[in-house]
Amino acid sequence: MTLHSKFQDETDKSAKPSYFNLPPLDVSVAFPQATPASTFPPCASDYYQFDDLLSLEEQAIRKKVRECMEKEVAPVMAEYWEKAEFPFQVVPKLGALHIAGGTIKVIPGYGCPGLSLTGSAIAIAEVARVDASISTFFLVHSSLAMLTIALCGSEEQKQKYLPSLAQLKTIACWALTEPDYGSDANSLKTIATKVEGGWILEGQKRWIGNSTFADVLVIFSRNSTTNQINGYIVKKDSPGLTATKMANKIGLRIVQNGDILLKKVFVPDEDRLPGVNSFQDTSKVLAVSRVIVAWQSVGISMGVYDMCHRYLKERKQFGAPLAAFQINQQKLARMLGNVQAMTLVGWRLCKLYEKGKMTPGHASLGKSWISLKARETVALGRELLGGNGILADFLVAKAFCDLEPIYTFEGTYDINSLVTGREITGFASFKPAPMSQRSRL
Amino acid sequence: MTLHSKFQDETDKSAKPSYFNLPPLDVSVAFPQATPASTFPPCASDYYQFDDLLSLEEQAIRKKVRECMEKEVAPVMAEYWEKAEFPFQVVPKLGALHIAGGTIKVIPGYGCPGLSLTGSAIAIAEVARVDASISTFFLVHSSLAMLTIALCGSEEQKQKYLPSLAQLKTIACWALTEPDYGSDANSLKTIATKVEGGWILEGQKRWIGNSTFADVLVIFSRNSTTNQINGYIVKKDSPGLTATKMANKIGLRIVQNGDILLKKVFVPDEDRLPGVNSFQDTSKVLAVSRVIVAWQSVGISMGVYDMCHRYLKERKQFGAPLAAFQINQQKLARMLGNVQAMTLVGWRLCKLYEKGKMTPGHASLGKSWISLKARETVALGRELLGGNGILADFLVAKAFCDLEPIYTFEGTYDINSLVTGREITGFASFKPAPMSQRSRL
Amino acid sequence: MTLHSKFQDETDKSAKPSYFNLPPLDVSVAFPQATPASTFPPCASDYYQFDDLLSLEEQAIRKKVRECMEKEVAPVMAEYWEKAEFPFQVVPKLGALHIAGGTIKVIPGYGCPGLSLTGSAIAIAEVARVDASISTFFLVHSSLAMLTIALCGSEEQKQKYLPSLAQLKTIACWALTEPDYGSDANSLKTIATKVEGGWILEGQKRWIGNSTFADVLVIFSRNSTTNQINGYIVKKDSPGLTATKMANKIGLRIVQNGDILLKKVFVPDEDRLPGVNSFQDTSKVLAVSRVIVAWQSVGISMGVYDMCHRYLKERKQFGAPLAAFQINQQKLARMLGNVQAMTLVGWRLCKLYEKGKMTPGHASLGKSWISLKARETVALGRELLGGNGILADFLVAKAFCDLEPIYTFEGTYDINSLVTGREITGFASFKPAPMSQRSRL
Amino acid sequence: MTLHSKFQDETDKSAKPSYFNLPPLDVSVAFPQATPASTFPPCASDYYQFDDLLSLEEQAIRKKVRECMEKEVAPVMAEYWEKAEFPFQVVPKLGALHIAGGTIKVIPGYGCPGLSLTGSAIAIAEVARVDASISTFFLVHSSLAMLTIALCGSEEQKQKYLPSLAQLKTIACWALTEPDYGSDANSLKTIATKVEGGWILEGQKRWIGNSTFADVLVIFSRNSTTNQINGYIVKKDSPGLTATKMANKIGLRIVQNGDILLKKVFVPDEDRLPGVNSFQDTSKVLAVSRVIVAWQSVGISMGVYDMCHRYLKERKQFGAPLAAFQINQQKLARMLGNVQAMTLVGWRLCKLYEKGKMTPGHASLGKSWISLKARETVALGRELLGGNGILADFLVAKAFCDLEPIYTFEGTYDINSLVTGREITGFASFKPAPMSQRSRL
Repeated sequence: MTLHSKFQDETDKSAKPSYFNLPPLDVSVAFPQATPASTFPPCASDYYQFDDLLSLEEQAIRKKVRECMEKEVAPVMAEYWEKAEFPFQVVPKLGALHIAGGTIKVIPGYGCPGLSLTGSAIAIAEVARVDASISTFFLVHSSLAMLTIALCGSEEQKQKYLPSLAQLKTIACWALTEPDYGSDANSLKTIATKVEGGWILEGQKRWIGNSTFADVLVIFSRNSTTNQINGYIVKKDSPGLTATKMANKIGLRIVQNGDILLKKVFVPDEDRLPGVNSFQDTSKVLAVSRVIVAWQSVGISMGVYDMCHRYLKERKQFGAPLAAFQINQQKLARMLGNVQAMTLVGWRLCKLYEKGKMTPGHASLGKSWISLKARETVALGRELLGGNGILADFLVAKAFCDLEPIYTFEGTYDINSLVTGREITGFASFKPAPMSQRSRL
Repeated sequence: MTLHSKFQDETDKSAKPSYFNLPPLDVSVAFPQATPASTFPPCASDYYQFDDLLSLEEQAIRKKVRECMEKEVAPVMAEYWEKAEFPFQVVPKLGALHIAGGTIKVIPGYGCPGLSLTGSAIAIAEVARVDASISTFFLVHSSLAMLTIALCGSEEQKQKYLPSLAQLKTIACWALTEPDYGSDANSLKTIATKVEGGWILEGQKRWIGNSTFADVLVIFSRNSTTNQINGYIVKKDSPGLTATKMANKIGLRIVQNGDILLKKVFVPDEDRLPGVNSFQDTSKVLAVSRVIVAWQSVGISMGVYDMCHRYLKERKQFGAPLAAFQINQQKLARMLGNVQAMTLVGWRLCKLYEKGKMTPGHASLGKSWISLKARETVALGRELLGGNGILADFLVAKAFCDLEPIYTFEGTYDINSLVTGREITGFASFKPAPMSQRSRL
Repeated sequence: MTLHSKFQDETDKSAKPSYFNLPPLDVSVAFPQATPASTFPPCASDYYQFDDLLSLEEQAIRKKVRECMEKEVAPVMAEYWEKAEFPFQVVPKLGALHIAGGTIKVIPGYGCPGLSLTGSAIAIAEVARVDASISTFFLVHSSLAMLTIALCGSEEQKQKYLPSLAQLKTIACWALTEPDYGSDANSLKTIATKVEGGWILEGQKRWIGNSTFADVLVIFSRNSTTNQINGYIVKKDSPGLTATKMANKIGLRIVQNGDILLKKVFVPDEDRLPGVNSFQDTSKVLAVSRVIVAWQSVGISMGVYDMCHRYLKERKQFGAPLAAFQINQQKLARMLGNVQAMTLVGWRLCKLYEKGKMTPGHASLGKSWISLKARETVALGRELLGGNGILADFLVAKAFCDLEPIYTFEGTYDINSLVTGREITGFASFKPAPMSQRSRL
Repeated sequence: MTLHSKFQDETDKSAKPSYFNLPPLDVSVAFPQATPASTFPPCASDYYQFDDLLSLEEQAIRKKVRECMEKEVAPVMAEYWEKAEFPFQVVPKLGALHIAGGTIKVIPGYGCPGLSLTGSAIAIAEVARVDASISTFFLVHSSLAMLTIALCGSEEQKQKYLPSLAQLKTIACWALTEPDYGSDANSLKTIATKVEGGWILEGQKRWIGNSTFADVLVIFSRNSTTNQINGYIVKKDSPGLTATKMANKIGLRIVQNGDILLKKVFVPDEDRLPGVNSFQDTSKVLAVSRVIVAWQSVGISMGVYDMCHRYLKERKQFGAPLAAFQINQQKLARMLGNVQAMTLVGWRLCKLYEKGKMTPGHASLGKSWISLKARETVALGRELLGGNGILADFLVAKAFCDLEPIYTFEGTYDINSLVTGREITGFASFKPAPMSQRSRL
C-alpha cells in the first residue's frame, strides 16, 4: 500500500491548520456558564481575618495593590502569558503604586517607600494573587536588584540608581545563576579581572529574570585575584553584553528570563558594588528575597482559592452547582485551610525578621513549607475547575504552572529543606558521600 | 503424615510462652544508644518563637504544665498505655495545676481559673505533648462536662459541682454519642420521660471517655414529649446505670472509654440542666471543644518533633548520626514546618474566639486542618525512629496511634470539612442523594 | 512626584522587549551540561521486564512506534508545543506505522490493523512517551472516531471512511462534550431535527480535539423527536459548521481543540450512524477509550522517568552527579515503582477486555488510578530537573502540563472514582442531595 | 486551697477503676449495626480477577489458607493482639496446611512443600489478610530460619531440622539485628570465637521474632578470627542464652519479639551453618524474604479493603449507608486500585524470581513500593471506619498498626529505596558525607 497522504510534504503550516481559519471564540461566548478571571473574583480567602493583624498602612497597601492588579493586569494576563511576552504598558501603573524598593529605608534622595517587611510581603502577595509573573518581575527588580544596591552599594550608587528604579522608570535585573550552578551558586565561574579604571567580566548567566529589557544589570562574578564573589552594576548598552530570551517555559511565561553572555564586558570602577566581597554578602539579600518568594506562593494560592470559590457556585453539573458536591467542598475546605496556614507562617516570618531574629533556617523553612502547601493548593484548584482548569483564562491553570518555578527558584524545596535541616541538626548534608564506597546491603 | 505437634491441645497459655519466662529487659539496657521518652526530650519545636505571642500568664501556664507532665506522666505513660489503664495517682498533680475549668469565668464559689482560651489551649497542648490520653481525660472533664455545667447549668448546679471538679477531686464525663449515631449526633435515641419529681432515662451511650470511673456524668437524651435534646447530671451510683470499659483500642489506650447502659435511670428534677433545650445548645460547648481538640493535635506533634530531634542526634547508623542524612533532615524540616503552621492556625482560632468572631466553620476548619497535618507529622516521625518507632517507650509510636482517634472524634476529618464547606459555599452536603437515581455514566 | 516612565503610552510591544533583540540561544549552547529531549533518552523504565508479557507482534509494534516517535517527533515537539500548533508533517510518518484503527477487525475494505487491545495500548503509550499531544490526536482519531464508525456505522460507511482514516490520509474528530455538559455528558443540548432527506443539526460543542482541521467530524446530538442521542458523520465543508481553535491551554498544546458551532447544518440520511440510538451506545466506545487514555498516562510516565534517569547522571551539583544524592534516588525509585505498577494495571485491564470480562468499573478504576499515579510521577520528575524542569526542551515540564488534561478528560478523576464506586457499592453518588436540607452539625 | 483529692495516695489501682467493675460488653451488643471481623468478611478485593493468573495448585493453596485463617484465627485475633500474646493453639492448624518451608525443594527427608514462590507468596498474603502477626510468625520461621538452613545448612542439618520445622512441631527464629545495627546490619558486634569442639557466642540481639519460645534459633555473629559473618543453629536450652519479650509494641503485638542475650553460649561444631561465610550469604535469604514481606502488605490491604467494603454497606449515618457517600466511595475506589496494583507488582516480582532474573533492586523496589501503597491503603481504611477504626475488633485498626513494623522491617522504606537507587544509578548513597564540610548556602 502506498501512503500518499494529503499531509505529505506539507511543511508550510499556513496552508493547513484551521481550515475554517477563524479567530478563537471569546471565552465568554464559548463558555457562558462561568466568569473568566479577566473579571477577577472577589477575595474570599481571608477566612481567619488576617487583615486584623495588619497595620492600617499595611491594609492600605493591600487595598491599592489589589485594585490596580484586578483592574490593569487581570484583563490582559491570559493573552500575555500565552504569548510569553511582557505587558510593558502596566509598568507605569505599578510604578504609581510606590511600592518598589520595599523595605529600603526612607532616606532623602533614594525615593524608596520604606515599607515594613510585612507591608512589602503583602504587596507582593496581592500582585501574585492576580499574576505570579508580574510579582516575579517585581521580586527581581525590587527585592533582589534594588535591595542589593541599597545594602551593598556606595552612597553615590544609591543616589544615582534608586530613585528611578523606585519609580519603575528604569528596570533592573539580578544575575547570579549560571548554567552549571543552580543550587550550588557558590561555585560560579564568571570571572572579573581588574584592569585599568575598571574590570573585565567574562562568562555566562542563565535564568536571569527581566534581563532582556533591563536598563541596569546587577551581576556577580568571581574575582580573578581573590577568588571571592564581587558584584557590579552593568548597563544594558555595554559592549560585549547580550541577553537573549529563554524560550519554551511552562510557567511564569510573562517573565522574560534571559541567557546572558559576557564577552570582555568592561565595567568602570565606579560601578563595582563595594559591599559585595564574598558569597556571604549576597545572603543578606537572599534572606529577604526568600521571604518575598514565600509570599508569592501565598498570593498565588489566594487567587486560586478565590477563583475556585466563585467558579464552583457558577458552574453546574447534574443539575446542581459544583459547590454542592461533597468531594468539591472537601477540596475547597482543604485549600482554605492551607491558605490560612501559609498566611500565618509567612506573617510570623516577617515578624521574626522585623525583630532582627530571623535566621537563614527560618527563611528557608518558610519558603519551602509555604511553597509546598501552595503546590498542593493549586493542584487541588486545578482539579476543581475540570476542563476549564486547563485554560489560562480561568486563572487556575496559569497559577498551577507558575507555581512550579517558584517552588524551585530561590533554593529548591530540597535545598531549602537542607538549609533548615543543617540549622536544626548541626549537620550539613548538601553533598553526597564520596563515590568510592561499596555497600553490601 | 500425622501431625502431633507439641502445641496440640495447649490452651493453657501459662504453660507456654517465654520458656525463659524472664521479665522484659529495661529499654535502656536493651537499647542503650538513645534515651527513651521516660526522660522527656527538651522542647525544640518552637522554632518560630511562638512563645512571644503569649501573655506572661499564658507563658507561665505553659511552663508549669510542661514541668508537671514531664516529671509526673512521662515516666509512667508507656506502662499504662500498654495496660490500657488509667494512672489515678497523677490526678492530684494535675489538680494542683489549677487549670481544670479552663475558660470558665472566675466567679466566687466556682473555683475555676478563668483562663483565656489561648491559655486553656496552651495548657492542653502541653499535656498532649507528653501524653494525648491524659489530655483527652482533661478535655472530657473540663472542656466538655464542666463547660456544659457552666454554660447550661443553674446557679445551684454550678455552685454545687464546679469547685470539686475544678480541683479534680471529683471527675466528670460527657455522654452524647450513641452506637447508632456518631457523626449524625442530632438523631440520638436515648429517651428521657418526665415522671413525678424527675425524669426516667432509657438508652445506650458509647465511647464515653472517663465514664467507667466518673463521679458525675453529663448525659444527653431526647425528651419524649418535645422530641428535643435535654441534658442531665447523673451520679455514678444511680440505679440502672452501668458503664463498662471498651476494650481493644489502638489509640488513647489510657483513656477509659465506656459503653453506658441506662435502664430506667431516675434523675431528680434538680439535676436536669435547664440550659439544654435543643441540639443547638450543645454547640456552644462543641465550638470550644473543637478548638481544644485542635490543640491536642498541636501538642502531640510538638512532642513527636522534640523526640525525633533528640533521637536523630543520638542514634547512629553507617557511622554517622541519623541527623546527618539528607532524607532524615528533609522529614524533620517538614515536621517542623507543620508544627509552626499548626500552632499559628490554632492561635489565630483562639484570637477569633476571644474577639467573639469565631464561627462553626472556623472551628471545624481549625480542627480538621490541624489534625490532618498532625497525622502527616506523626507518620513522618514514626518513620524517622525506625524500629524504635514501634515501641511506646520512645513516645512516637504511642503518639502515632493516639492521633487517630483525635483525627476522628469531635467530628471526623470529613464531617468537619463539610461543616466548613457548608459555611463557605452555602450548601449542606452531609447527606447523599436519595437512592432511586439511575445514572448512565 | 510626577511619574513619567519610559513605559508610559507604550502599547506597541515591538518597540520594547529584547533590546538586544536576538534569537534565543540554542539550549545545547545555553545549557551544555545535559542533553535535551530532542535527542530522546533511551528507555530505562521497563525495570520489571514487562516486555516479556507481550507477544512478539506487540513487541514489534512497540519497537517501530518508539523509533518513529524518537526520530520524527522528539526533535520538533518543544517548538510546536510552544507555538500551540500541530506538526502536520509527521502525519504521514504516523500513517506509515499502520496502527490507526487499532483493534478494529481486519475485514477486507476496512484497511485496519486488527491489533489486540494490548497492542493498541502499547502503541499509544509509545507515542505518549515522547509526546502526549500526538497520542491524543491519535486517541481522538482512532479510538474515538474510527471506532465509533466501526461499531456503530453501516457497512457502507465503514467501507467509505475507514480505509483513508486508517492511513491517516483523512483525519477525524469526535464531538460529544458541550459547554454546559462535561461530566454530565448525558444531558447534551445539540439538537438534530429530521427533515426531508436528512437532518438539521443545531448547537455548540467544545473541547473537540482535531476539530479545526478534521476532514470528518463524528457529532452527537439529541433527536428532537425521541429525545435520545444520535450520531452523525459530518464533513468539514458543511455549510453552517465552524470550528475555532481554543486558545490559552496549559497542556496538550499541540492538540487543536475546537469550539464547534452548528448553525442549521444539514446532514444527509446516509451520514447518520445507524448504531447510535441512545447514550448507552457511546459506552462501547468509551470503554475502550478509557483504557487507551490510561495507557497515555503510562507512556507519559515512562518518558519522564527515562528523561530523569539520564539527566540525573549528566547534571552535577556540589561536585557530584545529581544521581548520587539520597533525596534524588528516593524520588527516582518511587517514580520507577509507579511506572511498573501503572504498566501492570494497564496490562491486566487489557487482558480483562480481551477476555470479554471488562466492566465500566474496571475501566474507570484503571483510568483514574493510573492517571493519579502518573500525576504523582510527573510532579516528582518536575522537581528532579530543577530549573530545567520548567523548560519544554527537557520533556518533563511539557509532560507535567500534558498530564493535567489527561487526568481530567474521558471522565475526571472524581467521576471515574464514582463510576467504580457505584459498581462496587451498588449506590450511585454522582448527584448531591437536593438543596432543601438544613443540618445542624 | 489545700488539695486533698480522693485520688491522693491511691497507688492500688484495683481499688479504683471501673467502679461498676463489669466485664466489657461484647462488641456485637455494644455496637449492633455492623459485623466485627471475628466473622471475617468475604473477599471483595480481587476486582481484576488476579486469581486467573494463578495455577490451579496456587489457587488451591489460597483457598485452604483462607479458610483456615477465617475459621481459626479471625475469632481470637483481637483478644490476643490486645494481650500481646501468641495463640499457640492455632499452630497445629497452620502446620496442617503444609505450607511451612515454602519454596524449599521437595527432597526426601526434608518434608517441605516445594511451592512456587508465587504459591508461597499467596499463602503468606492470605495469612496476613486476616492477621499480620501470624504471617510474621510464619515469615520468620519459614522464609528466614528454614530457608537459611535449606540454603546454608549441611545435608545432616537439613535432614535433622527441616521435617519437624515443616510440620510446625518445632519453631525457629532468625537472629541478625542488634541494638546498634538495624539498617546497617553488616556491622554487627556479636562475636563467635573458636574453641575446642565448637564456638563461643557472646553478644546481644534485638527484635528477634518468635525468639521467646523458639526451639531453634538461627544466630549470626562475627567470626573473631576472620571478621566475617558466620551462622549457627542454637538450641533454646543452651546455657548462657536468654530471650526476653519486648514490651510496649504498637503493631504486630501477637508476634513475640525478643531481646536475646548471649553470654558465653557454647555451640558445637555440628551446629555451625557451613554455608554462611560472609554477609553476602544472608542475601540469598533476604532476597526471598523481601518478596514475602511485600506480600504481607498485599494481604493486609486485601483484608482491610474487604472489611471496609462490608462495613460501609452495613453502617448508616444521616439515613443512608456510608457506602452511598461520595467521599467514602472515592476512598474505597482508591484503596481498590492500590490493591490491584500491589498484587500485580508482587506477582511480577515472583515471576522475575522464578525465571532467575530478580535482582536485589527489584526485590527492594517491590518491598518498598508495595508497603508504601499499603500504608496509604490502611490509613484510608482507618478513616472509613470512623470510631470503629480505633477498635481491633473491626480489623482495620489492628491492620493499621501492624503495617508500621512491616513498612520498617526487612529494610526500611528509605533503605530499600536506596538499594534500588544504587542499582538504577550506579551510585551508593547510604552514608552521608563526612562531617567536616562547611557549606555557605
